[in-house]
Amino acid sequence: MNELAIPGLPEYAFGGDYNPEQWPESVWQEDMALMREAGVNLVTVGVFSWAKLQPTENTWSFEWLDRVLDLCHANGIKVDLATATASPPPWLGLKYPSTLAVDETGVRMAWGARQHFSPSSSVFKKFSLALVEKMVERYAEHPAVVMWHVGNEYGAHTHRCFSEESADAFRAWLITKYGDVDTLNERWGTAFWSQWYSNWDEVMPPRKTVYFPNPAQQLDFKRFSSDAMLELYKAEVEVIRQRVGRQIPITTNFMRFFPHADYWKWSENIDVISDDWYPDLADPESHIEGAMGADLMRSLGAGRPWFLMEQAPSAINWREVNPAKPKNAYRRWSLQQAAHGADGILHFQWRASVRGAEKWHSGMLPHSGTDTAVWREVSRLGQDLKKLKPLLGAKSDSQIALLLDWSSWWALELDSRPSTRLTQMEALLDYYRPLAQAGYSVDFAHPEQDLSRYKLVIAPSLYLISDLGIERIRAASAGGTNIVFGKFSGAVDAEEGVRVGGHLMGLRDVFGCYTEEWHPLVAGQTEEVLIGSNRGEVSGWTEHIRLLPGSAIEGTFSTGDLAGLPAIVSKTSEKSKAWYLGCTPNRDMIASLLEAICIQSGAAPVLYSVPQGVEVTKRSNENGSFLFLLNHTGVEQSIEIGQASVDLISAESFVGAVTVGAGEVRVLHLP
Amino acid sequence: MNELAIPGLPEYAFGGDYNPEQWPESVWQEDMALMREAGVNLVTVGVFSWAKLQPTENTWSFEWLDRVLDLCHANGIKVDLATATASPPPWLGLKYPSTLAVDETGVRMAWGARQHFSPSSSVFKKFSLALVEKMVERYAEHPAVVMWHVGNEYGAHTHRCFSEESADAFRAWLITKYGDVDTLNERWGTAFWSQWYSNWDEVMPPRKTVYFPNPAQQLDFKRFSSDAMLELYKAEVEVIRQRVGRQIPITTNFMRFFPHADYWKWSENIDVISDDWYPDLADPESHIEGAMGADLMRSLGAGRPWFLMEQAPSAINWREVNPAKPKNAYRRWSLQQAAHGADGILHFQWRASVRGAEKWHSGMLPHSGTDTAVWREVSRLGQDLKKLKPLLGAKSDSQIALLLDWSSWWALELDSRPSTRLTQMEALLDYYRPLAQAGYSVDFAHPEQDLSRYKLVIAPSLYLISDLGIERIRAASAGGTNIVFGKFSGAVDAEEGVRVGGHLMGLRDVFGCYTEEWHPLVAGQTEEVLIGSNRGEVSGWTEHIRLLPGSAIEGTFSTGDLAGLPAIVSKTSEKSKAWYLGCTPNRDMIASLLEAICIQSGAAPVLYSVPQGVEVTKRSNENGSFLFLLNHTGVEQSIEIGQASVDLISAESFVGAVTVGAGEVRVLHLP
Amino acid sequence: MNELAIPGLPEYAFGGDYNPEQWPESVWQEDMALMREAGVNLVTVGVFSWAKLQPTENTWSFEWLDRVLDLCHANGIKVDLATATASPPPWLGLKYPSTLAVDETGVRMAWGARQHFSPSSSVFKKFSLALVEKMVERYAEHPAVVMWHVGNEYGAHTHRCFSEESADAFRAWLITKYGDVDTLNERWGTAFWSQWYSNWDEVMPPRKTVYFPNPAQQLDFKRFSSDAMLELYKAEVEVIRQRVGRQIPITTNFMRFFPHADYWKWSENIDVISDDWYPDLADPESHIEGAMGADLMRSLGAGRPWFLMEQAPSAINWREVNPAKPKNAYRRWSLQQAAHGADGILHFQWRASVRGAEKWHSGMLPHSGTDTAVWREVSRLGQDLKKLKPLLGAKSDSQIALLLDWSSWWALELDSRPSTRLTQMEALLDYYRPLAQAGYSVDFAHPEQDLSRYKLVIAPSLYLISDLGIERIRAASAGGTNIVFGKFSGAVDAEEGVRVGGHLMGLRDVFGCYTEEWHPLVAGQTEEVLIGSNRGEVSGWTEHIRLLPGSAIEGTFSTGDLAGLPAIVSKTSEKSKAWYLGCTPNRDMIASLLEAICIQSGAAPVLYSVPQGVEVTKRSNENGSFLFLLNHTGVEQSIEIGQASVDLISAESFVGAVTVGAGEVRVLHLP
Repeated sequence: MNELAIPGLPEYAFGGDYNPEQWPESVWQEDMALMREAGVNLVTVGVFSWAKLQPTENTWSFEWLDRVLDLCHANGIKVDLATATASPPPWLGLKYPSTLAVDETGVRMAWGARQHFSPSSSVFKKFSLALVEKMVERYAEHPAVVMWHVGNEYGAHTHRCFSEESADAFRAWLITKYGDVDTLNERWGTAFWSQWYSNWDEVMPPRKTVYFPNPAQQLDFKRFSSDAMLELYKAEVEVIRQRVGRQIPITTNFMRFFPHADYWKWSENIDVISDDWYPDLADPESHIEGAMGADLMRSLGAGRPWFLMEQAPSAINWREVNPAKPKNAYRRWSLQQAAHGADGILHFQWRASVRGAEKWHSGMLPHSGTDTAVWREVSRLGQDLKKLKPLLGAKSDSQIALLLDWSSWWALELDSRPSTRLTQMEALLDYYRPLAQAGYSVDFAHPEQDLSRYKLVIAPSLYLISDLGIERIRAASAGGTNIVFGKFSGAVDAEEGVRVGGHLMGLRDVFGCYTEEWHPLVAGQTEEVLIGSNRGEVSGWTEHIRLLPGSAIEGTFSTGDLAGLPAIVSKTSEKSKAWYLGCTPNRDMIASLLEAICIQSGAAPVLYSVPQGVEVTKRSNENGSFLFLLNHTGVEQSIEIGQASVDLISAESFVGAVTVGAGEVRVLHLP
Repeated sequence: MNELAIPGLPEYAFGGDYNPEQWPESVWQEDMALMREAGVNLVTVGVFSWAKLQPTENTWSFEWLDRVLDLCHANGIKVDLATATASPPPWLGLKYPSTLAVDETGVRMAWGARQHFSPSSSVFKKFSLALVEKMVERYAEHPAVVMWHVGNEYGAHTHRCFSEESADAFRAWLITKYGDVDTLNERWGTAFWSQWYSNWDEVMPPRKTVYFPNPAQQLDFKRFSSDAMLELYKAEVEVIRQRVGRQIPITTNFMRFFPHADYWKWSENIDVISDDWYPDLADPESHIEGAMGADLMRSLGAGRPWFLMEQAPSAINWREVNPAKPKNAYRRWSLQQAAHGADGILHFQWRASVRGAEKWHSGMLPHSGTDTAVWREVSRLGQDLKKLKPLLGAKSDSQIALLLDWSSWWALELDSRPSTRLTQMEALLDYYRPLAQAGYSVDFAHPEQDLSRYKLVIAPSLYLISDLGIERIRAASAGGTNIVFGKFSGAVDAEEGVRVGGHLMGLRDVFGCYTEEWHPLVAGQTEEVLIGSNRGEVSGWTEHIRLLPGSAIEGTFSTGDLAGLPAIVSKTSEKSKAWYLGCTPNRDMIASLLEAICIQSGAAPVLYSVPQGVEVTKRSNENGSFLFLLNHTGVEQSIEIGQASVDLISAESFVGAVTVGAGEVRVLHLP
Repeated sequence: MNELAIPGLPEYAFGGDYNPEQWPESVWQEDMALMREAGVNLVTVGVFSWAKLQPTENTWSFEWLDRVLDLCHANGIKVDLATATASPPPWLGLKYPSTLAVDETGVRMAWGARQHFSPSSSVFKKFSLALVEKMVERYAEHPAVVMWHVGNEYGAHTHRCFSEESADAFRAWLITKYGDVDTLNERWGTAFWSQWYSNWDEVMPPRKTVYFPNPAQQLDFKRFSSDAMLELYKAEVEVIRQRVGRQIPITTNFMRFFPHADYWKWSENIDVISDDWYPDLADPESHIEGAMGADLMRSLGAGRPWFLMEQAPSAINWREVNPAKPKNAYRRWSLQQAAHGADGILHFQWRASVRGAEKWHSGMLPHSGTDTAVWREVSRLGQDLKKLKPLLGAKSDSQIALLLDWSSWWALELDSRPSTRLTQMEALLDYYRPLAQAGYSVDFAHPEQDLSRYKLVIAPSLYLISDLGIERIRAASAGGTNIVFGKFSGAVDAEEGVRVGGHLMGLRDVFGCYTEEWHPLVAGQTEEVLIGSNRGEVSGWTEHIRLLPGSAIEGTFSTGDLAGLPAIVSKTSEKSKAWYLGCTPNRDMIASLLEAICIQSGAAPVLYSVPQGVEVTKRSNENGSFLFLLNHTGVEQSIEIGQASVDLISAESFVGAVTVGAGEVRVLHLP
């Protein structure tokens, strides 16, 4: 039998956050009826209910929630039950100000928005765990509850705190890491600028300073802040697991490429990887971002099915301008997540709020009710997803991995850099985009994991790499995996120190080169690179590369101060090949480069000869393979898939070529 | 006899703020002589004199002010006497820090600029009222004093305070409004995001939070802040009225479309509506803004004559760049205010300061003295205004009203909106501009007032509308008034909640439509609307409109996701017609639309066939009618007025056509 | 014998900051060997060593520094010994928070970056002087030490503090300046806006206010802040001088046109003027800025040789983008500093850091070691500079001076101005650029110094001028010096008050004109000026100028509201001529204007007929004259110098014409 993400829900999950406390109970019955009509089979309940469950420090009010869960159960709707700790009630902040996060200038955040707690507050932890105890005690056995949902979007809005208590916690974290203050001094390089600490008491979070704070201090504070939130999550999990069995998974919802939590570390503690996706509708490449984020989620779960825990059927409310979703986009992008491994599609939220900060965030059930395009789209999707049951648990196979490490991301984007215009997301997109457009299935991987199962491993800009990371790269390369390192990779060690001797130390023989000096380009500056007889354009970044024995020049700068010097270098070793790109190629150049590299690496796309703008992915399980054809263009497309297939949704049968309408999707079963 | 704004001053008022404490007494005599030369008959004295009147907590120094008032009296110059409470002295802040405003991060503002008091400080109130007591005691009977001037530009710089004392006052205001905390919870929608309050003590001003604070909390805090300032004003008025009779009016100076005080509510307490106008000289449409602001002032006073209390004869000092006023602009724009109902033209300030933050703000008497263009312009205007005495008290007649409600303005521009690029001012200008250019006289009106006397009522973007507002619109429509609602109007109730069922609830039958979903456009995006065979362009905002029985489509989207759907809808009922515009039309489109709507509404411009760039207004009293012809163009213009007239200023007589020189103005008496 | 900047170092100084505490002692020997290889003869030691010298309040650790100094001595490398007070250790901030600077909102700065001390902290002063005592006690007689280096870049990052202690110090400074609070009230103009102080206690630093703080308060706070830092410097000097003789100079390093310290006042206390220069490599005119800053340094030292104390051989790390230095730029710009009077070229820092915020700031010895372009360039320069020994102490002769006064700069750029788009640096560059490009040697001068030795004195925008400044200008003009005043000059007195009667009071007869009103132009606005039959363009600023008897119109506005009025006025008096330019001319216009003015003034460039892009300077001493030819272009250039010469570096001899390779430099000895 296929692997089910939620054993208690043997269907493709469809639903959303359900916040009935916003409405009188008289509408709950209508909610149930409409949920059934739309095909909803899972709702997340209680995420923001703390104040309604514990109205004062010493009073509790669970009866309303009892009724909600019973009602769901009576209607056959399963519940992902939140621990309700995401946002503490006003009384907690008023009576215990230490629970409120403090910014780098010492300002204590007010309640009145949401999720304003200090991750290191012991009082917050005490009260939140007490609430979880109550919840578990009451609902551990509730038949509707098939999953527990801890917190909400950890790090959204508050991802760090500079209070005294947080400073203590940071010091404790550092003591665990470094043991003695001399080691910290050495790893942080405090001999410079007279930052040397004589005593742990002197070590602080990077509060407001007059100039760049120590970068290793900043980096460790980012790590600590992610860990501090993770500790809260794990503490809740521990309370839940004391009463709730393994057949009920526990989750919390991620936010795609969220810059403030190390999701690799978090993922180890999460049963069902869950994600929230709110694409920027002003970005014409939202579908690229859609695929990339989904691939990250699948990779965080080591290939397991994951859940799109939140999306909006149409507009959201927090960007500068929040358009409605374009025609077909809601359905196509939802199915795209399934195409990349999602076994559940949920929304925030069921019924659009009529008050509060998110009333203009679209809900599954709009203000105007069921005679609306949104409701019709939601219901259509709900019905369609029921038909995807055969693919539950199906997995993908990727021959290519992109390396992503939050520590490196954090370090790359600190202040005091050669160029503050480099960002991790831009570097990832530079390499992911052409691979996706060429139809390759791509995983994300951490540089410290075993990489040898991939044919090609690419580090778009892995500024920081640990000793273990170096070992992993060397081992993969030695074992036959091809390696690509983009600009400014391998520059520093785990504490952001330059290794003795400089760039690419430990990997110089793999790439046959190293960089003598960075040559970032200023805004508007472009230079030219010759690859054979082809001219490519680079911007943002170039490097003065030095060759080592055995290397080959793949591209040469033909303009600027570096004219005549290598821009791209490769080295072929016994079992594999490695490339170093010391520049930011433009789109055409990186696309043709990667095409050649993929071919040389023996990596194959899901399907050859796919029309531009059509995305193809494959998932497989014991029921066979499932081919997703997503037509992101505005015209009908025909795709030759070379075998017989049946569309799971429309039940149409095809032999060979398959047509997909403009903006439409097919999920083909290949028996 | 005509209504006089100031009974004690039966002339057209001309003058400015007079701050003699900046100079040695030796120059006061020169001031008097030059004032007489320039035609000054009214000066505002004492606005910033607190520190000089009460040098320490327990010492008072009024003798210098006695001499100033006596000198004015001796020279026949009337005085608008300030209560001097606008800016407290340094000793007050030092000894009583609670008088200083606190920002949302808890920072207490320093003295050393101006007007830094906390509106809710009880200590500030005590000291300011004590000063007013002293002032009134001493000057209630002074023969020069014809008006009292409370405070100054309430809300300029400090329009709110987040101190503990302000938090208490905010809670008291909320208790008065809502009675019990459960009602507040319901109206603010605190069930969402765990914001539910168990107790009044937990309710706070919207201090610094990590994400959007509750929007109803923000909205009520804006209302409270306006009211808190108004309470200070009213408290001073009460002290004055204990000694000063009704024949001496009391005023305070507004700042046109000032976003931080609800001027409708304030106006009820002000005898002579007064205003400060500092046009942005980089804006080529300053004269549109000039007319619009003046119309607001006239409307705030329900048609009564009002005063331009402050303007600069030339440059100011607080914008990024502060040019000198263009040729003729000072005179033309001054007379424009008279054209729109002003019976007094005053300035800040009489003599340009030589020290302090406003020394580069032009004065009536420049640093370089009387051999200056500014002085000559000022004197010319002073002489001209004397000739306007016959029109004192004359009123205008408007058949069209634009709806403006500060609550709606505040709500529209809160965070967490479908589009934060929508602003109230832009929406007002979108509709006011073409009406002004077509020569219509326009009032501003509050949606909760009786609107039935207008032929056409337009809500450019009335996002929030109360139940009473809905009643007023329905009543006007039923009585024969045509109604136009622009985009995103009628979306929420008085506490910014979406009404059950959604948009335009309570008004759907009036307009024959409602909006199913907002479709804001991103920056740079435009779409097309077909009106008959004409193509119009829209940007910024579109809506997915749903038709109801009896409606007619006036315009249809022809591009984008909404192509084929209605953009503009009308409904004709028994006595009137109503239009709903679900988009932001560009200038040409809105101009031709409004032209058609005005004609259908039976509204007439002041004069037909007026050359472009010439503004015409009419005021009437028992002396007859007065036609203002303002030539905003750079060439002489000829206007056919169709009857005999006499220019009040030049004394020239005309029969039919009248010429107006480039940049010049005529005030024609039509006997 | 020539004047030596450092008597103990009779060579051209070459070296940099040496921070050996960042490395294990094992690398120190390598440092010494490589320093000798590169020609290093002077290193600055100890700048950031406080935490390593005094690890806790009561422990000291000098042994490592002993070894460093001894090692330098043993290797023949001289030491510029820092007092190590630039950046206090963490323990000081933790135990004595009063040592930490406080910003205008009351936030106390954290340690963890650098130089975070409050300049007015008595505790900081006590501890820093105690350290200096220890240093002097130990190293006063050390044979390697040839100069003492106090602090570091005073004002970098922390140039002011708003703490209570700083407020006390500010008041004490004001009491010294004004004597009684009434005088302060008069000079600050506190009668306006009710700012009048009854008592010194009420006077504060300009902390966060709701609107513009009093400008004279702001100006005095800037003066006080510069003086507060200078007091710290002088206190250290006093301690050093108690043990160290005059033959050992004392210095601190400036930062070119640093906006937060009055370098004229500082310079009086500094034996060797030292400077740090980090050009913006995105600016194509870095070499203009390079020359201008060097001329300022030479002028601050009254023509004495000065030291480039810090520069980077290639990239830095603190701008948004930090490119590598362009080909040849490091060498050419280094020699350019010598060309303008530098007798030492040093760097920050010797060995590039591998940790901390400046690891990406290039060092003389790069991460990649000696097989690098940077190392080869550094070594080449080190060898070349040895050959410059004959010109040590050589001086320049300038016939033209640009006036620069920090008080005027500060006042010009305060808030509440006619235009906040005016900046002092832009005004200086407007006039310096064409003079430099035409080959003139230019001094900077303070308006209160004797100006009579110059043929031409130019005030590009001397907004504030004191009574003494007026006297100096009048005296110079009367004595035969020509004077040019640019826009918005002579507007206010020393406390930023407009003089009675207005603009140019005290100098109206010199210029034959004054300005009636400022007419700043808005962004994008340009107007035209006719000079004879030539059309010039102006932007940013124009003025309505009034003529006085004896003046001549040199240029006339031909567009805009000022069309027909004078833009440039001159007056010829018995011995000299003066010009007033009431506008911001564009580059062509100011270049041709200044060319004509220089000719009329009898000023001569260093050399006539120099190709564009070639810079020529001359320094002379008893060994003869030295002509620097700097080719800033990309092609070889030939320059006719009209006499025989020998290139000091290449030893080539020339008769007449001399060629200089692209980007190269010659230093010609004219015996």
